[in-house]
Amino acid sequence: MTITITAYDRSPDGGKGLARDTRVRWALEEVGEPYDVTFVSMAGKQEPEHVARHPFGLIPTYEDGDVELFESGAIIQHIAEQHPGTLFPADPAARARAITWMFAAVNTVEPPILELVTVRILEGDRPWAAERTPLVLDRIRARLSRLSDHLATSDWLEATFTAGDLMMISVLLRARPSGLLDEFPTLATYVTRGESRPAYERAFAAQYAVNARP
Amino acid sequence: MTITITAYDRSPDGGKGLARDTRVRWALEEVGEPYDVTFVSMAGKQEPEHVARHPFGLIPTYEDGDVELFESGAIIQHIAEQHPGTLFPADPAARARAITWMFAAVNTVEPPILELVTVRILEGDRPWAAERTPLVLDRIRARLSRLSDHLATSDWLEATFTAGDLMMISVLLRARPSGLLDEFPTLATYVTRGESRPAYERAFAAQYAVNARP
Repeated sequence: MTITITAYDRSPDGGKGLARDTRVRWALEEVGEPYDVTFVSMAGKQEPEHVARHPFGLIPTYEDGDVELFESGAIIQHIAEQHPGTLFPADPAARARAITWMFAAVNTVEPPILELVTVRILEGDRPWAAERTPLVLDRIRARLSRLSDHLATSDWLEATFTAGDLMMISVLLRARPSGLLDEFPTLATYVTRGESRPAYERAFAAQYAVNARP
Repeated sequence: MTITITAYDRSPDGGKGLARDTRVRWALEEVGEPYDVTFVSMAGKQEPEHVARHPFGLIPTYEDGDVELFESGAIIQHIAEQHPGTLFPADPAARARAITWMFAAVNTVEPPILELVTVRILEGDRPWAAERTPLVLDRIRARLSRLSDHLATSDWLEATFTAGDLMMISVLLRARPSGLLDEFPTLATYVTRGESRPAYERAFAAQYAVNARP
């Protein structure tokens, strides 16, 4: 079985690991699965060949001979299910909690963080950008504060590292350039704990090698 | 086994079915599971008793004696897994595609739609609100256009109705008050197809009875 994912041939972040293929690379490294990468350009992602893989013309996608998937959350869940006891605990209730945190990451924590791109880049030259920025930051802080309370003295969101942590840490990394993580030392430490995992280091290095070339 | 979910005692939408408990009610109706509802007030959702159920102080939550969950996506997935062949197809690859669409709904289609609340309500009295509105609408249109292309002549996102449709239709309903759905007749019809399901009608009626009282 050969796993193939798609990623940008040149990520907009220049190799900071914030494009969503890094999340999938990380999951594959955690379970020890090798994978191939098909690169897609910013223009090519709109072409019929790629839209057939991803209806919204985005990355990443995943195929393994049995299934063709898109959306990093669904891909990571599929990888986790193929390797019981790694990214998902074997206990059904604990597995359901891991899935709860995956959805919390992408539907409760990430949406306000995505607005950093809107206010700083998409609308960065608009007259309201400066005045809106603190409003956007406050909406992110409201989520981070709750998450920080939950983590308190725990290493991970539940008893062990799961796909929920993988997704939450990946989402939090997108808030780090704003400086917001430093306001929540518990979260800054949590993110560093995730980045220190050998599987993350390998995933980061792989995407960096593609994107940081001159 | 008694299933208990939480919902607002008075939803901000006044019974339009846009609060996320409706998604969970719909899933429970599709699989034929009765459920109890614990109501939470806007003030009460910040209290320790509710934060213990939902770390971000939101609704819905779910408990059934075996698991305690939050996040509508995770709850619906759990319900689907307890009733094979209803909201998830029995075939593993088809099930994985249904999960792909659940994540597409909450992480690709819903984030730009959530910005309607920001521009119209949270920042509705700001001087930039009028000028920003068309920018927000255009970012939603970009997603809806792709989704409309994918659906084309299909009744559902894949061969049969799945939890992916349930979540996508629930997300699209939040865009309807803006008039955007009417620009994409394929999507307007798709949403109506979902609303016409008896399970949706029962779920809508149940939340309406709570929220539309004087």
